[in-house]
Amino acid sequence: MVLPSLNDIKKAHARIEKYIHKTPVMTSSQINKITGAEIFFKCENFQKVGAFKFRGAMNAILQLSDEEKKRGVITHSSGNHAAALALAARTAGIKAMVVMPSSAPDVKVKAVKGYGAEIFFCEPNQAAREQTTADLIKETGAILIHPYDNFNVICGQGTATLELLEEIPSLEMVIAPVGGGGLLSGTSTAAKGITPRIKVFGAEPLNASDAWKSFTTGVLHPSVSPRTIADGLLTSLSELTFAVIRKNVDNIFTVTEESIISSMRLIWERMKIIIEPSSAVTLAVLMENPEVFRGRKTGIIISGGNVELDRLPFSKPYETGQ
Amino acid sequence: MVLPSLNDIKKAHARIEKYIHKTPVMTSSQINKITGAEIFFKCENFQKVGAFKFRGAMNAILQLSDEEKKRGVITHSSGNHAAALALAARTAGIKAMVVMPSSAPDVKVKAVKGYGAEIFFCEPNQAAREQTTADLIKETGAILIHPYDNFNVICGQGTATLELLEEIPSLEMVIAPVGGGGLLSGTSTAAKGITPRIKVFGAEPLNASDAWKSFTTGVLHPSVSPRTIADGLLTSLSELTFAVIRKNVDNIFTVTEESIISSMRLIWERMKIIIEPSSAVTLAVLMENPEVFRGRKTGIIISGGNVELDRLPFSKPYETGQ
Repeated sequence: MVLPSLNDIKKAHARIEKYIHKTPVMTSSQINKITGAEIFFKCENFQKVGAFKFRGAMNAILQLSDEEKKRGVITHSSGNHAAALALAARTAGIKAMVVMPSSAPDVKVKAVKGYGAEIFFCEPNQAAREQTTADLIKETGAILIHPYDNFNVICGQGTATLELLEEIPSLEMVIAPVGGGGLLSGTSTAAKGITPRIKVFGAEPLNASDAWKSFTTGVLHPSVSPRTIADGLLTSLSELTFAVIRKNVDNIFTVTEESIISSMRLIWERMKIIIEPSSAVTLAVLMENPEVFRGRKTGIIISGGNVELDRLPFSKPYETGQ
Repeated sequence: MVLPSLNDIKKAHARIEKYIHKTPVMTSSQINKITGAEIFFKCENFQKVGAFKFRGAMNAILQLSDEEKKRGVITHSSGNHAAALALAARTAGIKAMVVMPSSAPDVKVKAVKGYGAEIFFCEPNQAAREQTTADLIKETGAILIHPYDNFNVICGQGTATLELLEEIPSLEMVIAPVGGGGLLSGTSTAAKGITPRIKVFGAEPLNASDAWKSFTTGVLHPSVSPRTIADGLLTSLSELTFAVIRKNVDNIFTVTEESIISSMRLIWERMKIIIEPSSAVTLAVLMENPEVFRGRKTGIIISGGNVELDRLPFSKPYETGQ
């Protein structure tokens, strides 16, 4: 199995640079004071489609041959990767198909449609998704762009950390969320490639701790019925992302739902930026383990900002006229 | 009556520069597409204390004599000016007192306390506020720093537009919210001073349209029982801000509560930044009057980002496990 290298990520960056936003690195003196660490937030919530996923999708599409481009691309996802692939395909002038569960929230369906992809609904389970996708590939010859089990997607995701370490070369630690492991694979490959002594950590909800279990036991465990507010982190590692993570990652920390929600709220309130729950797991790791990060220059990948604003965990119903 | 000049604002900027954040100017291709305008958002939600108010408070405090500094400062406010004055006073090493209505939300009381000010509660009405403040001034000799009826405060508020026009000199229009008129006075003085042909507009809730009424009739009207979600815009113009606005402002637009809420949501969703309702009135003006702004380079002052996250106008109660 060939694992991505720092050089692959650098080439990906050169390839996608003119299509992506170079997102800002933000700091908060108040959150530094609370945690005792010196945190640098790489804000991929400001990336196109509101998530780092656009980097990987764009890189994968730009590496298709002309013949493959004619066939179009396909994926199954109800999340940020679906929107990212749709926009990346439109940017490259090719066709995109997205298989979504019939239970997908209307707002996500609209986003993917808005970027011009064709949507195919299926029953809301893994088997139906895969079958529907396989049928469509057979029928149309479309190229599957997997959300994370894809070398080029991983290289694209790593470019966020490339930019972060270019801007803050003195980082001692980096934390990224882990679901399927595409972001953590890219992050760790870039970080260890640039600064071998840097520590790289994964952040995972305790209620979806399959990556932690796999990392700790050395045996790949699938995700089983995860129930977490961090809805971007429900997926399982693949053989490829597991191999990269075992090689490059120093540890995976799990965090409670309460920590995720309070960390999300802390970032909203103090930094005035909107991040999704799946991004808040990183700060939650710092909040639950302050001793590991005290006094350390720590990079955090804020993976995205796509939140259903009418279903927030800290909101009571609004009463007018108060 | 002496009105502030561009030069006064430039001097204020030199004075406060090392204490304030130079806030970013953001753009959104999606919101440009929706409105047909080319909008530049000056993001004072990222300013210290989460609002432009810190500029004015800091400028006012830096111009006190040593003798006045010893006496400390006082204001009556339950909003952003209270927090701004508290932090500015702490920064300058002087004492601050804040008179707040007993009904002020706990989160605002905590913020002001957190910045080290001493709080005095009074009955929640204008007469009680003014009496309590007058009594305290008599007793302690503290210097009143009014939220907007203050030459130095107005000059400080104008520095946001100075930075905006330095970064985007080709702006054709600028919109700022108007409550008591401190921000709009500073904004219009800076903008017309730098670019005499620029159009400057005030944005006001229809449910608190006293500034519009004053501007239109040429007679100062007080704010009477305003009921709006834009809780930073409840106050009335003063003689000073009215004079500046009559001289420099081209028009004041009023907007509905529905427009304010949907504009706020649009910015949250598309730009991933948190702005308060009082800031959303500006985009609401663009949404309600697209013909005025179509194709125009328009600057918008995003005045602040202090929102009670557990009382949002677009939220339903959260159900776990969904």
